[in-house]
Amino acid sequence: MTPPMVGIIGAGQLARMTAQAAISLAVDTKVLAVLPTDPACVAATAVEIGDPNDPAALQRFVAGCDVVTFDHERVDPTLLARIETEGVRVRPSAAVLHFSDKAHQRVELAAHGFPVPPFDVVTTASEVVAFAAAHDWPVVAKTAVGGYDGRGVFVLENRDQAVATIGGLAGRRVVVEPMLDISAEIAVLVARRPSGDSAVYPMVETIQHDGICLETIAPATIDPDLRTQARNIAESIAETIGSVGILAVEFFITPDGVIVNELAPRPHNSGHWTIEGAITSQFENHVRGILDWPLGDTSLAAPAVAMANILGGAPSARPDDLPGALSVSGAHVHLYAKPTRPGRKLGHITATGPDQTVALHRARTALAAFTGTPMSKGTLHDH
Amino acid sequence: MTPPMVGIIGAGQLARMTAQAAISLAVDTKVLAVLPTDPACVAATAVEIGDPNDPAALQRFVAGCDVVTFDHERVDPTLLARIETEGVRVRPSAAVLHFSDKAHQRVELAAHGFPVPPFDVVTTASEVVAFAAAHDWPVVAKTAVGGYDGRGVFVLENRDQAVATIGGLAGRRVVVEPMLDISAEIAVLVARRPSGDSAVYPMVETIQHDGICLETIAPATIDPDLRTQARNIAESIAETIGSVGILAVEFFITPDGVIVNELAPRPHNSGHWTIEGAITSQFENHVRGILDWPLGDTSLAAPAVAMANILGGAPSARPDDLPGALSVSGAHVHLYAKPTRPGRKLGHITATGPDQTVALHRARTALAAFTGTPMSKGTLHDH
Repeated sequence: MTPPMVGIIGAGQLARMTAQAAISLAVDTKVLAVLPTDPACVAATAVEIGDPNDPAALQRFVAGCDVVTFDHERVDPTLLARIETEGVRVRPSAAVLHFSDKAHQRVELAAHGFPVPPFDVVTTASEVVAFAAAHDWPVVAKTAVGGYDGRGVFVLENRDQAVATIGGLAGRRVVVEPMLDISAEIAVLVARRPSGDSAVYPMVETIQHDGICLETIAPATIDPDLRTQARNIAESIAETIGSVGILAVEFFITPDGVIVNELAPRPHNSGHWTIEGAITSQFENHVRGILDWPLGDTSLAAPAVAMANILGGAPSARPDDLPGALSVSGAHVHLYAKPTRPGRKLGHITATGPDQTVALHRARTALAAFTGTPMSKGTLHDH
Repeated sequence: MTPPMVGIIGAGQLARMTAQAAISLAVDTKVLAVLPTDPACVAATAVEIGDPNDPAALQRFVAGCDVVTFDHERVDPTLLARIETEGVRVRPSAAVLHFSDKAHQRVELAAHGFPVPPFDVVTTASEVVAFAAAHDWPVVAKTAVGGYDGRGVFVLENRDQAVATIGGLAGRRVVVEPMLDISAEIAVLVARRPSGDSAVYPMVETIQHDGICLETIAPATIDPDLRTQARNIAESIAETIGSVGILAVEFFITPDGVIVNELAPRPHNSGHWTIEGAITSQFENHVRGILDWPLGDTSLAAPAVAMANILGGAPSARPDDLPGALSVSGAHVHLYAKPTRPGRKLGHITATGPDQTVALHRARTALAAFTGTPMSKGTLHDH
């Protein structure tokens, strides 16, 4: 069999781990990178340097690819749609990638009857004020595009903050929603093939701080009815929008039940635990899905699996202690080889265990050894 | 931390899987390959083309490596020893690599009192005949160097065969031993650091055919006393010879107890199952060991783990069916991207299960789907 060539637009850690997984299947990967030092370049079969929003660079890149996918959403969907009409297999499709626009996503999910928070899509402070009049301050405003890891998300306490913040966004579309009463955040990953077959990963609880995912723990220990609800909603969304490869669906658990927070049409931080913690990793299943190959078993490979992100420390932080982290039995360290910057995701650590508490303790112990900072004090909602 | 650079002499499947594992730790790898299409080239950070037995090529290759290791034994130990004296960190050492010489290995193990078969190191047919006079025909003759996967191993039934075979070896050293009464073959992998710390993997049973390892199954279901014996011997050999990284010790189970068959001072086919089947793979532990980093947990990650090698079929064989193999739930396919040749190791398939029988059945089912040939009929010694 001639190995298929998968083109990945973007060369960050998601592309890095996807390319690493593709090696086992002898699937060739080519990444479209900004710099030759981007995280995925060492793992990919081939590297092209270019701007995905430069039509000529994109055209050059997709030539010779059996299928094109991405590790980030900073690609113009209309450009992708044009490439698609020229016969390039883009998976997930440009239409699905469009769902990374938070406004489009929210409007579409609501239109299909999926549970979303009350919301409005606005561009002016006065619209925010009108929304707050109906729903009370504070409100949460999220830029429709360009936000990640807490960037582009604002908690607005009053009219003055709304004016200052929305004024600073120069007319960009913003999704505004009430400050919800959230007891937990969970994520469900769905792997799907073009044929429609899908496989759902066990639900994880995500522990966030300032909008950045710090830790995940699988399986999430939430009410079985809510779990079933969330699982069904995630699968139904994947089918409704026609996702291919991995789709991550993030939920809020509120007094009103599960509410869809956000979608990401690609491998996702909330699924990094699957490398060691599931029978088949999200990265391998993304590759299988976009190549329309049978999906792998998504079951847990251990009773409980915890993942802790390695975030860049202050410039004064002591050097990382990788051997220190490796001395924690059962800790799996994944480094992305990215230049450090405070708060930047530089890697993650996964640990399995007989239960959630033990797994989380192992992951945190290894993280503390790595960074030399005290162990995280965040707790699971019900531990 | 500046990523360490690991140089790997050779670019076959062992280097490929080592480089793939190194990505997680952000350890850079450079392989010394024969061809740019060698299996490891896609996974390594850097590739150099050259002959490891060309002193100039080897000198160029080791420059800039923090540590040098290998994926095959076809390197001149004296050349490596010279490089070592120049201050290059070769791990395992040239002295350990010398143990891949079957005659040296046998003589040294016997001298240290480890259980080995009766043997002689010979170069002539008349010495073989003399050995057979003491031990009876048939005898087994193995070339001291250059043999692998059954090549260089000969069962000699009588004087005529001895004359024909040994005559054809043009004076090469040969280890001769009696035809043993073998009830099972097992392998024990030991990971070791220069500091002396070591970690032992659960014992596997290997199922061989014509000297080629077809399948492995972990854990081996042999008598606990023999298991303890073999484990202790393997650890003791690792310490005695000062191995660093992975050392594979292959044993015969005979009516006289466990007997050491052969050593391999590197990651080994009998440890491929550890990628999914152990908490830490042999490849990651090889990297950790040669970098003198803490070794990872070698425990089983599932109750039972089976591995089946994918061997090249006849030229008339139908094309491989990767999607077919992936449709077997829980099957992990690893392809080495090597040109096919009858009997050549082209990849392997690992499956876990609640017990050895189920795991082996899964691996065989996936292999049969991949190759389109009927399932292997080989059985475990006691299943």
